[in-house]
Amino acid sequence: MATVQEKGTISIHTENIFPIIKKFLYSDHEIFLRELVSNAVDATQKLKKLTSMGEFNGELGDLRIEVTFDKDKKTITVSDKGIGMTADEVKKYINQIAFSGATEFIEKFKDKADGKDIIGKFGLGFYSSFMVADKVEIVSRSFKAAEHEAARWECDGSTEFELSITNKQERGTDVILHINKDSEEFLDEWRLKGILEKYCKFLPVEIKFGTTEESVEDGVDSEGKTKYKSVTKDRIINNPSPLWTKSPNDLKDEDYLKFYKELYPFSEEPLFWIHLNVDYPFNLTGILYFPKVKNDFEIQKNKIQLYSRQVFITDEVKDVVPDFLMLLHGVLDSPDIPLNVSRSYLQSDTNVKKISQHITKKVGDKLQDLFKKDRKDFEKKWDDINIFVKYGIISDEKFYDRAKDFTLLKNVDDQYFTFEEYKEKVKANQTDKDKNLVYIYASDKGKQHSFIEGAKNKSYDVLVFDGILDSHFINTLEQKLEKIQIKRVDSDIAEKLIDKDEKIESVLSQEEQDQVKSVFEKAINNKNMNVTVDSMSPNDLPVVITMNEFMRRMKDMAKTGGGQYAFMGSMPDNYNVAVNGNHPIVQKIIKAENEEAKTKLAKQTFDLALLSQNLLTGADLTNFIKRSVELIS
Amino acid sequence: MATVQEKGTISIHTENIFPIIKKFLYSDHEIFLRELVSNAVDATQKLKKLTSMGEFNGELGDLRIEVTFDKDKKTITVSDKGIGMTADEVKKYINQIAFSGATEFIEKFKDKADGKDIIGKFGLGFYSSFMVADKVEIVSRSFKAAEHEAARWECDGSTEFELSITNKQERGTDVILHINKDSEEFLDEWRLKGILEKYCKFLPVEIKFGTTEESVEDGVDSEGKTKYKSVTKDRIINNPSPLWTKSPNDLKDEDYLKFYKELYPFSEEPLFWIHLNVDYPFNLTGILYFPKVKNDFEIQKNKIQLYSRQVFITDEVKDVVPDFLMLLHGVLDSPDIPLNVSRSYLQSDTNVKKISQHITKKVGDKLQDLFKKDRKDFEKKWDDINIFVKYGIISDEKFYDRAKDFTLLKNVDDQYFTFEEYKEKVKANQTDKDKNLVYIYASDKGKQHSFIEGAKNKSYDVLVFDGILDSHFINTLEQKLEKIQIKRVDSDIAEKLIDKDEKIESVLSQEEQDQVKSVFEKAINNKNMNVTVDSMSPNDLPVVITMNEFMRRMKDMAKTGGGQYAFMGSMPDNYNVAVNGNHPIVQKIIKAENEEAKTKLAKQTFDLALLSQNLLTGADLTNFIKRSVELIS
Repeated sequence: MATVQEKGTISIHTENIFPIIKKFLYSDHEIFLRELVSNAVDATQKLKKLTSMGEFNGELGDLRIEVTFDKDKKTITVSDKGIGMTADEVKKYINQIAFSGATEFIEKFKDKADGKDIIGKFGLGFYSSFMVADKVEIVSRSFKAAEHEAARWECDGSTEFELSITNKQERGTDVILHINKDSEEFLDEWRLKGILEKYCKFLPVEIKFGTTEESVEDGVDSEGKTKYKSVTKDRIINNPSPLWTKSPNDLKDEDYLKFYKELYPFSEEPLFWIHLNVDYPFNLTGILYFPKVKNDFEIQKNKIQLYSRQVFITDEVKDVVPDFLMLLHGVLDSPDIPLNVSRSYLQSDTNVKKISQHITKKVGDKLQDLFKKDRKDFEKKWDDINIFVKYGIISDEKFYDRAKDFTLLKNVDDQYFTFEEYKEKVKANQTDKDKNLVYIYASDKGKQHSFIEGAKNKSYDVLVFDGILDSHFINTLEQKLEKIQIKRVDSDIAEKLIDKDEKIESVLSQEEQDQVKSVFEKAINNKNMNVTVDSMSPNDLPVVITMNEFMRRMKDMAKTGGGQYAFMGSMPDNYNVAVNGNHPIVQKIIKAENEEAKTKLAKQTFDLALLSQNLLTGADLTNFIKRSVELIS
Repeated sequence: MATVQEKGTISIHTENIFPIIKKFLYSDHEIFLRELVSNAVDATQKLKKLTSMGEFNGELGDLRIEVTFDKDKKTITVSDKGIGMTADEVKKYINQIAFSGATEFIEKFKDKADGKDIIGKFGLGFYSSFMVADKVEIVSRSFKAAEHEAARWECDGSTEFELSITNKQERGTDVILHINKDSEEFLDEWRLKGILEKYCKFLPVEIKFGTTEESVEDGVDSEGKTKYKSVTKDRIINNPSPLWTKSPNDLKDEDYLKFYKELYPFSEEPLFWIHLNVDYPFNLTGILYFPKVKNDFEIQKNKIQLYSRQVFITDEVKDVVPDFLMLLHGVLDSPDIPLNVSRSYLQSDTNVKKISQHITKKVGDKLQDLFKKDRKDFEKKWDDINIFVKYGIISDEKFYDRAKDFTLLKNVDDQYFTFEEYKEKVKANQTDKDKNLVYIYASDKGKQHSFIEGAKNKSYDVLVFDGILDSHFINTLEQKLEKIQIKRVDSDIAEKLIDKDEKIESVLSQEEQDQVKSVFEKAINNKNMNVTVDSMSPNDLPVVITMNEFMRRMKDMAKTGGGQYAFMGSMPDNYNVAVNGNHPIVQKIIKAENEEAKTKLAKQTFDLALLSQNLLTGADLTNFIKRSVELIS
C-alpha cells in the first residue's frame, strides 16, 4: 500500500457557521442589546485610552451612549461617540466574524496600557443582532476623520454585505437594527428599559435611553392654576462608577448601605459586608453583604449578581460562590471567570475553584475580625449570621477549621459561648459515668418548656438549636468534638438525661410499681406507649412522655432525607411514658377504691402529660376540654 | 463627496474561531463523549439507511459502538462500524468545521428516506474533543472500501492537520483522543460510565463499554472449593428501543411501570401516565408520569428528562413544560425543540410555547378521561393529583376552563364533590342574607376539631383545604366562582360564620353582658384580645377564640409573600374572644362572691379556650398543667 501524506489547514465556511452564530449561539434573544451596548462602551473606552496615551488630541465632548427606538420604523439604534471605524476598519472588524477588535487593540497597545476596561473578547457579539433583526446598518465616522469619510455598512442576514461612503458629522458609530417580525416585543419602552437595567446598569460609560414622556409644570393659567406640559425626557439608566470599583479606603458605611439599596430596593439593611479586591492569582472585585434573613422568599429573590468588567452576566453563581455562601447578597466582578461564548453560562474550570476558595477565606477572616473586635456586637448579630456559619461548618472542612474559634452556642437564657467556653461551663455537672460530656438542647422553647424546667432543676444548662440546619449541625459537632454527646431535652426524663449512676430511692415497693404500671398501661391502651415507673422528685409532673434521641433523629431524617431512611417514616411514633413513682397522685391511684377510679385518674394525668407535649389534638383535645369545663362549672 | 459602493461576502477566519469552538462553546467538558458517540450512532444509522434503500448490499455484521479507554496510554477511543469515511470524505467533513454531514446526507436522500434517525445538526460536535484532548486521531475505512484505502487523520489542536492512508480491516471509524493533563479525570471507569449513562442511555444503537473486571466461578480446586477467575466483561450500557419510541397500542401497563423503574429505580409506582405522540405542527414523543408525591425531596430528584432524537439534553425543562407540570416525571423527546449549539440550553422560541400548550391540553384530556371513566377511582387518586390540578388552575386560565368540570372539593368526612355538585349540596343551608353562598373549610382537622364540631352542629358542611397550594387555590376560586365566599371554620363563632340575620336570644341583660365583658378583659389583660359576649348554644364551649378571615389571610401572605405585605408580619396577632353568654359558667361568674373568684373562673375558661386552639404554650401551659394536677391530686 502506498502511503499518501498530506498536511493542510482546517477551514470554516462562512455559509455554514453564519446561521449557527446568528440563530443558535445565544440562548436568550434579549442578549443582543447587551452585546451592542458593550461594543459601544468598548469604542468609547478605547478613545479615552488613546487620549490618555496622547494618541488622540481632539475634543472628547459628550461621550454618552444613546439607545433609542422607533416603533413605526421598527428600528432600534445604539449610538456611541467613541473611536468609530473607517471603511477599511469596518471591512476588517465587521466582515470578518470572530475577529476580536478588542484583542487586537490590547495587543497593539500592550506596552502603554492594560486592557482591563475593554469588554469585547470573542468578536461575535455584534452578530447577535441578527437574532432579532432582518437587516442591520452600521454608520460610522472614525476619530481619524480628517483623513477618511464616514462609512455605511448594511447586511440583510445573508453572508452578503454592502459597504459605501456616506455623510456623518459626528464621530462614533450608530448601529441600526431593523427588527424582524418575531421580535417586535423589543419595540417597547418598558421591555428595552428592563433589558438595559438588567445588563447595563453598571457599565462604565453613561447610557441615555429616550422617549419617556413626563408632565412638568409650565407656569400658571389665567385662573392661577398650575399648567403642565408633556416633555420627552432622556434618562441615564446606569451608574458608571459602581461602588465595587472604588477603593475601600475611600468609602464610608453609608456608601455601602446606599449601594445595597440600589441593588435591592425593598430589602432591610444588611448586617455587614466584605469588599473583595483581588489582583493575584486572579482578578476579582465585588461586595458581599450578609443580609438579615427574614424568610425563605427574600433569600431566593436577592441573588448575588455576577459581572464581567461591569457587564451583568448572570445571577446563577453556583460554582463561583461556595454553596454555603449562596445566601449572601451583592455583586462579584471578574474578567477571569471563564464564560462560554454566549457568556451567560459558566464553564467548569480550576480558576473557578480558586475563586470559590478565596471567597470562603475572606468570609472567614471577616467573621473572625468581627468576633475579636467586638464580642458583644458579634453576639447581637449571631442570630442572623449563624445560618451561614453553620452551613459552612457542615459543608466545608476548611471553613470549620477557621470557624471553630468564633462559632457560638446559645442557651435558653440567651447567653452565648464559644465551643471552649461551653465545655468549661458544663464540665463539672454534665459529665456522665463514662466521662462523656452531655450537651442538652431544646428545639422549641415554648413546646419543651416543662422539660427545660426539669433540666434546670438539676442545674443543667440547656442550649437552643431551633434553626433549619441545626439537626445537621448537631451531627457535625458530635463528629468534630471529642467525647461529647448531644441530647434533646425531651429525649428522657431529667433524672436520666445524664447517666451518673446515681439513684433516687423510690417510695414504692416493687409490687406497687408493677400495679401502677399495669393501671397506666390499661388506661393508655396503646402499644406504642412504653410505660415505666421511675423515681423522680415529688415536685416534678406525675407523668412525663419522652421520645428516645436516636429514634427521634431517625424519624426526622426519614421526613427530610427520604432514601435509605424512608422506611422509618412509616413506622409508628414510639414514646416512653415515665410515671413519677414519688408523685402524691400515684399514692392516690394506689389507694383508689376500684378499678374505674384508678383508670380515670391515670387517664387524666396521662392526658395532662400529652397536653404538655402538644400531643393531645382533635377529638381527644375537645373531650379533655369539655371534661375540664364540667369540672369547674 | 464621491460615493464608493462595494459588495462582498462576510468571512470567518479559522484561526480566530477555532479556539472559540474548542474552548468556549461548550460549558461542560464531559459533553465531548456525548458528541462523539452521537456521531458514531449517525454513521451507523446512515449505513442501515443505505442498506434499506438498496445502496449498500454488504454484510452489516455486529453494528455495536464501542467505547474504551487506556489509563496508561491516556486515550479514550470511540469506535463504530458504520459507513466510515474515505480520505476525501475526511477532508470534506472533518477539515471543514461546521459542515454538517448529517444535513448533506438528509438532503441527498430526501426523496428516499426521512432524516429522523440522524442526530448531527451543527457539524461542530467533533471539535468538542479538543476540550479534553491534546491530540485527536481518526482512523476510518469507508463501506465503499473496495475502491478506497483506510484514512488516518491527526490534529494537535492547532489548525494544522495531517492526513494519510493507513491499514484498517474493519469498516467504520475509530476516534482516538489523547487526553490532556487537565482532563485526566475522564480516564476513569466510573466517570466514563456515568457520562455514558447520563447522555447515551437511550441511543438507538447498542453501545459497549469495556474493562469491568468480574470474578466468575472456574470449577473446583483439589479440596473441592469453588475456584474463581477474573474476567473482563463488556457491558451494553444503553436501551436502544426506549418505550416512548414504541406505539402505545403495543404496550401494556406493566411496560410503562417497568420503564418508570428504569428511569427512577428508587421510586414508588406512579399513579398513571400519558404517552405523547405528536407529528404536527411539531414533532414530540414522550411519556409523562403522575407520581405519588411523598415529600419535597422526591420531587426535586426525579426530574423530567429532555431528549432530542434519543440523546439526553437536559433535565432543566423549564419553558418546555408548563410550570405546573414540572412536578411530573418522565421523558420528552423532540427534534423540534430549539437548542443552542452546545445543546444543553433551550432557546426561547414560539415553537416551545406551542409544545407547552400541547402538553397542558393532553394532561387536561387525560384527567377528564379518568374522571369520566371511573369516578370512584378518580376520587381515590385525588389526594395525590390535586396538587397538579390546583397549580394548573391557579396559573393557567386555559387549564381552568378544562379542569373546572373534574376538579373535586373534599370535605372533612372524605366525601368528594365537583364544583356544581357542591353548590347544589350547600345552597339551601349556607346562603347568607345577601344571597352569597358561604363555603366553610378547615386547614387542620386536628387543631380545628372543636370548630368543626360547632359548624356541624349547625348542619354546615366543612371542606378540607390543607395543602401547600390551598390558600392560593381559595383566592382563585373566589375570583372564578360567582357570589361565593370562602371562610375558615375558626374565623368566627359558628353562629356568625354565615350571617342569616337570625338572633339567638341572650339570657343576659345588657348590664350583665357589660359586667361579664369587663371581668374577662381584666382576667385576660391583653389589648390584642377583643372580648365580646355572644349568644351561643348552652352546649357550646364557654369561650371561643377566633381570628378574622381577612386578618388571617393578610398575616399568611406576609409570612410567605413578603414585599408589600411584609409590614403585616410585624403586627401583633389580633384575636376575637367570644364569651358564650348562654353557658352555665357565665352565671357562675356573675354570681361569684368576689372579684378574685370571678377573675379566677374567667382565667381558667379562657385558658381552656386557648388550649383548644393550641395557643397555650411555654410557661403558661406548664402552669396550667400544674394547676390541673393539683386539682386532681
